[in-house]
Amino acid sequence: MKKYSEMTREELLAEKQQLKKQYEAYQNSGFHLNISRGIPSEAQLELSMGMMDVLHSEADYLSENGQDTRNYGSLTGLPEAKALMAEVMETRPENVIIFCDSSLNIMYDLVSKSYTHGVMGSTPWCRLDKVKFLCVVPGYDRHFAITEHFGIEMVSIPMLADGPDMDLVEKYVNNDSSVKGIWCVPKYSNPTGTVYSDEVVERFARLTPAAEDFRIYWDNAYNVHHLDFNHMHVIPEILTLCKEHGRPDMVYKFGSFSKISFSGSSIAALATSPANIADVTAQMKIQTIGHNKINQLRHVRFFKNAQYVMMHMAKHAAILKPKFDLVQMILHRELGDLGIAEWSDPDGGYFVSFNTQPGLAKKVVGMMKDAGVVMTGAGATFPYGIDPEDRNIRIAPSYATPSDLDSAINLFTVCVRLATAEKLLEDMN
Amino acid sequence: MKKYSEMTREELLAEKQQLKKQYEAYQNSGFHLNISRGIPSEAQLELSMGMMDVLHSEADYLSENGQDTRNYGSLTGLPEAKALMAEVMETRPENVIIFCDSSLNIMYDLVSKSYTHGVMGSTPWCRLDKVKFLCVVPGYDRHFAITEHFGIEMVSIPMLADGPDMDLVEKYVNNDSSVKGIWCVPKYSNPTGTVYSDEVVERFARLTPAAEDFRIYWDNAYNVHHLDFNHMHVIPEILTLCKEHGRPDMVYKFGSFSKISFSGSSIAALATSPANIADVTAQMKIQTIGHNKINQLRHVRFFKNAQYVMMHMAKHAAILKPKFDLVQMILHRELGDLGIAEWSDPDGGYFVSFNTQPGLAKKVVGMMKDAGVVMTGAGATFPYGIDPEDRNIRIAPSYATPSDLDSAINLFTVCVRLATAEKLLEDMN
Repeated sequence: MKKYSEMTREELLAEKQQLKKQYEAYQNSGFHLNISRGIPSEAQLELSMGMMDVLHSEADYLSENGQDTRNYGSLTGLPEAKALMAEVMETRPENVIIFCDSSLNIMYDLVSKSYTHGVMGSTPWCRLDKVKFLCVVPGYDRHFAITEHFGIEMVSIPMLADGPDMDLVEKYVNNDSSVKGIWCVPKYSNPTGTVYSDEVVERFARLTPAAEDFRIYWDNAYNVHHLDFNHMHVIPEILTLCKEHGRPDMVYKFGSFSKISFSGSSIAALATSPANIADVTAQMKIQTIGHNKINQLRHVRFFKNAQYVMMHMAKHAAILKPKFDLVQMILHRELGDLGIAEWSDPDGGYFVSFNTQPGLAKKVVGMMKDAGVVMTGAGATFPYGIDPEDRNIRIAPSYATPSDLDSAINLFTVCVRLATAEKLLEDMN
Repeated sequence: MKKYSEMTREELLAEKQQLKKQYEAYQNSGFHLNISRGIPSEAQLELSMGMMDVLHSEADYLSENGQDTRNYGSLTGLPEAKALMAEVMETRPENVIIFCDSSLNIMYDLVSKSYTHGVMGSTPWCRLDKVKFLCVVPGYDRHFAITEHFGIEMVSIPMLADGPDMDLVEKYVNNDSSVKGIWCVPKYSNPTGTVYSDEVVERFARLTPAAEDFRIYWDNAYNVHHLDFNHMHVIPEILTLCKEHGRPDMVYKFGSFSKISFSGSSIAALATSPANIADVTAQMKIQTIGHNKINQLRHVRFFKNAQYVMMHMAKHAAILKPKFDLVQMILHRELGDLGIAEWSDPDGGYFVSFNTQPGLAKKVVGMMKDAGVVMTGAGATFPYGIDPEDRNIRIAPSYATPSDLDSAINLFTVCVRLATAEKLLEDMN
């Protein structure tokens, strides 16, 4: 098929006509699908059901430190939970605090603590006229929601092929003392699937922040979430690098079992320097007596160590990969020759990032909704929900059944083509 | 035995001599006991072990609203968890948000949210020159730690026999717009065991706060924690009363299963007005995708409803009551005639509140420590850790075995007598 840019007005009109018919047919078919959020499918959840049998009424509830996990205590987590999380997060147990069921909650609490009490004795952000965060875009809407909630000015940093635009990151971080943080998903980034290159990670570790309380919010949410375990990506360990370069306290690193075991009912962790651990613990001990240790023990008893976690993640991949392949196949088949869109083909994570021609993302997502398919809102992947070019759409293939996904993505390509054809025709007027 | 006040110098000297010998004998006996915190004993934890069998790999994980509890969703909690918690908290499910494993965490988050974002659109407390909280004393150290952490000025309100000194509460709340909250444990109060009278609760509901963002922090931690189920106390339901008196939004009420099922691994809840629920949810949705719903389901499947909870709590009481009786017996036997101390004899909760002669609490707790028994730090029951009269000591009988408790309380009476005799002798010089 011809590129749209090479089509005559008549050809485009014909294209539009037949697409309109297709769209209407879809619209009348009564879809009720949701490919908006990166949530695991039921088949993935079934993988962890064995975890529900390891702790029963006759089980042993003692932690290796003698703590009865059914009682109060162990504020920062069980030693064996720290050991497991440390392995998965590529660090040491003494660098880890285990929290409740969500790493998002840890990030919120850290920003909130910095706002109310500052970072390691620095001025609380609520006492400053201006606080800025760098936001790699497109990125994760829930990150941006936290900083927006605290009135923090968000500065967009473009995502390049090998990670954020580090020239820009260095310019801001090293010169502007109001820049207090940056949101990063360094591996299989949400939504682009980008894996930060070794050089990019190295440049992060070599930052020389103007603000003493600057922290990299390193949300390694998809660290072991490869789609093909024969082609894994590994990135340099940021805590180690920062320590080597003399800034051990510059990173908060986050990990979670939410997409390993059960979403929202798992365990999550912060990995950071001993000084940050002490700073965070001083606040944490006011907030809680300790988080759910029985659930920590349950995870340890089931997952044992990082090798078992990897084996488990390969089972997730076996379910996820065919869905991602299906999406790629349809996008290539329907859009590959037309020169009207580009999209990511990630090796891990939960998303495909899709770019329409400028000005069409909102329209396409609206058309999908009108035909019964909910996608992530256009703009959600940018600070304040505003995509300046209105191009980016996040596709989340994980939850839908293969046949639902097939329908949704086919419809999606029709919407993209129709919206583009209409636009080109308008532009000709 | 004679009252100490009626003893001659010689009699007191003799008393001191024999007490010193007793103390030294205890000191040499190598005790390592801890009666510092109100934590359940192993026997109490065993009561809930059946809860670990209700959710296994073959169980049904669907909530009554169709939510797969293993996946993301249900931000404010499962409907059946709200229903259970509402029954236990004497309110309606629509007034309830289920949180993670600790009500302390809810309280911290509410104070933090009020500090950063205000209450229902009012000025955030971080923008105010002065914020005050009323603290009923003696009270719960972890409450006071939260307000101290946020630089909130704490004003002590004496606990009377039927609850806080309401004349003083009304004076402050109704006239001082910098008073934004009051910490209350209305039933079997920590540590005095006080049950607020109907009149006191009614006066709370009739408060006319000078500050629109004033909230009563009603920590009903021991609502169903009676020591004798043939002699329960019931107090008027504060949300209902506040609504009747035209101030539905004036109360945050807290409940927790931490001393019902497993401490630190249970579920906790906020009960409040629909307007407060909306205000809190707006912040909560930035902080998390939702809390551990599997644990909510586990609690509902095991506890079913408030009747079963009450039956379960009677089993706790059967374990706890003999310990509290033992404490009373020893205190009466060893101190009853001496006129040197007073203490509470609670009908519920986890503590006995003990008052020495002025100026002796720190000394007694220090002597206990030197003999190998850890008690709650003297002063902990007051804001800033300062008991102005240095009299109050909190005794926590729940965790120790009966024989350890017997030893600890016997030693305690020796310490109290010895410290008092020494003081009286000093005063005679």
